[in-house]
Amino acid sequence: MTSAAKALPAVLERIDADLEESLDRLFDLVRIPSISTDRAYKDHCRAAADHVAKDLESLGLDAEVRPTAGHPVVTAKSNGATAANGGPRVLFYGHYDVQPVDPLDLWKSPPFEPRIDRLPDGRKIIVGRGACDDKGQLMTFIEALRAYKTVTGGIPIDVTMMIEGEEECGSKSLFDFVRSNAAEFKRDLALVCDTGMWSPTTPLVTTSLRGLLYEEVTISCADRDLHSGLFGGGAANPIRILARIIAGLHDEDGRVTVPGYYDGVPELPADIKADLKALNLTPEEFLGQVGLKVPAGEKDRMLIEQISTRPTCDVNGIVGGYTGEGAKTVIAAHASAKISFRLVGTQDPEKIRDSFRAYVRSQLPPDAKAEFINHACSPALQVAYENPALAKARAALTEEWGTKAVAVGSGGSIPIVGDFKSVLGMDTLLVGFGLDDDRVHSPNEKYDLTSFHKGTRSWARIIAALVG
Amino acid sequence: MTSAAKALPAVLERIDADLEESLDRLFDLVRIPSISTDRAYKDHCRAAADHVAKDLESLGLDAEVRPTAGHPVVTAKSNGATAANGGPRVLFYGHYDVQPVDPLDLWKSPPFEPRIDRLPDGRKIIVGRGACDDKGQLMTFIEALRAYKTVTGGIPIDVTMMIEGEEECGSKSLFDFVRSNAAEFKRDLALVCDTGMWSPTTPLVTTSLRGLLYEEVTISCADRDLHSGLFGGGAANPIRILARIIAGLHDEDGRVTVPGYYDGVPELPADIKADLKALNLTPEEFLGQVGLKVPAGEKDRMLIEQISTRPTCDVNGIVGGYTGEGAKTVIAAHASAKISFRLVGTQDPEKIRDSFRAYVRSQLPPDAKAEFINHACSPALQVAYENPALAKARAALTEEWGTKAVAVGSGGSIPIVGDFKSVLGMDTLLVGFGLDDDRVHSPNEKYDLTSFHKGTRSWARIIAALVG
Repeated sequence: MTSAAKALPAVLERIDADLEESLDRLFDLVRIPSISTDRAYKDHCRAAADHVAKDLESLGLDAEVRPTAGHPVVTAKSNGATAANGGPRVLFYGHYDVQPVDPLDLWKSPPFEPRIDRLPDGRKIIVGRGACDDKGQLMTFIEALRAYKTVTGGIPIDVTMMIEGEEECGSKSLFDFVRSNAAEFKRDLALVCDTGMWSPTTPLVTTSLRGLLYEEVTISCADRDLHSGLFGGGAANPIRILARIIAGLHDEDGRVTVPGYYDGVPELPADIKADLKALNLTPEEFLGQVGLKVPAGEKDRMLIEQISTRPTCDVNGIVGGYTGEGAKTVIAAHASAKISFRLVGTQDPEKIRDSFRAYVRSQLPPDAKAEFINHACSPALQVAYENPALAKARAALTEEWGTKAVAVGSGGSIPIVGDFKSVLGMDTLLVGFGLDDDRVHSPNEKYDLTSFHKGTRSWARIIAALVG
Repeated sequence: MTSAAKALPAVLERIDADLEESLDRLFDLVRIPSISTDRAYKDHCRAAADHVAKDLESLGLDAEVRPTAGHPVVTAKSNGATAANGGPRVLFYGHYDVQPVDPLDLWKSPPFEPRIDRLPDGRKIIVGRGACDDKGQLMTFIEALRAYKTVTGGIPIDVTMMIEGEEECGSKSLFDFVRSNAAEFKRDLALVCDTGMWSPTTPLVTTSLRGLLYEEVTISCADRDLHSGLFGGGAANPIRILARIIAGLHDEDGRVTVPGYYDGVPELPADIKADLKALNLTPEEFLGQVGLKVPAGEKDRMLIEQISTRPTCDVNGIVGGYTGEGAKTVIAAHASAKISFRLVGTQDPEKIRDSFRAYVRSQLPPDAKAEFINHACSPALQVAYENPALAKARAALTEEWGTKAVAVGSGGSIPIVGDFKSVLGMDTLLVGFGLDDDRVHSPNEKYDLTSFHKGTRSWARIIAALVG
């Protein structure tokens, strides 16, 4: 028996005893408004990086806050702190940045003043922006390390940490960072805690992630805003042009019309499709929680496929003309939309980006022009089923939660994980404790107290299993 | 010869001599940020009303600031101040409210700090929000009255003033106000100074105005904003639904598809159409000034028809989801658009409103709902060609400008003018001095100094002609 496995019972006890104080530490991190996509929060992002680095140093890791073209990356290495165990050398990836908080008026309490609340069904929850994504999830791993450190005096696994600050805006700087420092960060296995459970009681190892292509397109017509009384009927209207472009992105069956879009989208093998079907995800169960009833994706696909194994296209934002209270009879000079594509299989994000832009340009009438900004361009990821870490993690999770851990693909995207495979040559173990009702990216984001507590315990078990 | 016509030469001289001081008075009014559509400017609207009332009192008129459900209406009557002339009893209508100023960063100087500037072609201009629409135009009439008052000691025509504060947001309260006080405001002829010249050198009497139906529609799906990684592909997206609705409002030929929309749209008589054609309005001339080249309206119509005698549909604003800097992978709970229709002939705004709403509802997929706010609902107006005031005004304008005044329909809308006909039973004489390059409703709104000066002189001549 290795020392990690031997220490495990005491480590789990320590995690239980330390829950209140580990929550205080999470709250300290959530209080920092590290919104990465908005330049106004730059200093707060830096403060969050410093905070995380200091915390990792307190565990005996060699931590650094390393500059990038954008927000810094926190790195830390166990080095001398590592107990001489076997097992893979791991790279743990997480992010300290969070999503914007708008619409702010829908928050029941200030987003950066974390608090404990209780749901009608009795579940205790941690409320605040980043409570789940990814500060709460990140802290489950750090708290597991801390418990080992307290109980055994050391870190039980050879770990390198990479905590970035731009995940919520496409991880732009991290791609260069990983390429430039490939030798340093190439380990045996990556660990990521930024995914979810199958249900509040069933743990999940995520076996695939969708890629993400995120484009911002701005349509411009006249060189100024126009009075619709004077020019209405004669002048091109960029909002109308943009609406036509968006409307044309899907056909009547819900398929994306961008030429070549489905190149590289695999048909699921019959057995995997049967597995998905057996999960019996009903619209009532999944969509019902947010007030919806009818799956809105490709008409010939199951809901579980629509949200996990099929590629999608969504408009994430649109703005143009007068958006204040009341009426203004204006024809805008510009209108813009943020349009994102979730990719699967071997869909090529760069090819699709080019095809999308060509489609938009082909739809422009005279006098209209289009400009583009790319916010994300990363392919999908499939985790190798044969990696032994996957089975070990499933067993550890099953032990902790008392319910067999499932292995399913996720509809979300973690931009950098594709590069862990393609650039650093390692698989990623995707384990997380988020729930569908966490309101991630929405007002009143929460993380179940059970997710935080049993998530920390889960990592303690997974670490013991990996070095075992 | 009436006293007004006798006094006219001295009145015109007085207007010339008083130009600097009349500009100071206009600047004082422009400095008040009376943006009616935004509740934050409520007190400023009240201040503008008080300012106008005080100015009218200084001319010997009985002025009042009368409350409505929205911003107040300034009324004033010449009563005892009127010289005992013949001629029609007139109701002069104008508005003291202005459009919002966004986007503010495109203004070269603060919008409410009026200043004189000079265009590259040498024209002197007054720059500021409301410099033209409608403060500058309104003041041409008031300054003409002032010159008569100074020269003759009295007001040469039986005039009632009605200066409202909600024209830029649909004149909502004024409709009730006019209906409730019909006896008081029913005069022989309405005068309105809120329209334009044919060109900087050719004056214009406007013979028709388009009506305006202005709807705000909000599409709602989920009961919260969703993470597009978790829900993308499965959840209905209100921005996509709204884009489809907007895209469906026009067919490939640029015609509006709302059922019954063209009921009541007259075909122009061949001779009037020939007159319009003879005006030879080229895209280069009209659209070129704002950086456009190709008429964007109904394909089988001349540009002059598209912007004046044909009904239109435009989207004046749209917003939904994340519109800040960078990327956010959200599926919004709501998206909304402001959609307006310019109406002609006997198109029925209420019927079209109902048909539009039915069309929107017919396009809603499951899980989507639509809510509507109406901001304007007024029919088009056709001025009676046989009203003698029209010929008198054309002659007076021709005298002042040295170029024959034309009589053409306008593409704009002045909501209340329809009610002057239908409720108060009087025709309206529409004379104004705006120019196509005035940037009305846009940043850097301006009014030519010549428009202001010769506009004031024009009213002095028109008044003399009417009472003559």
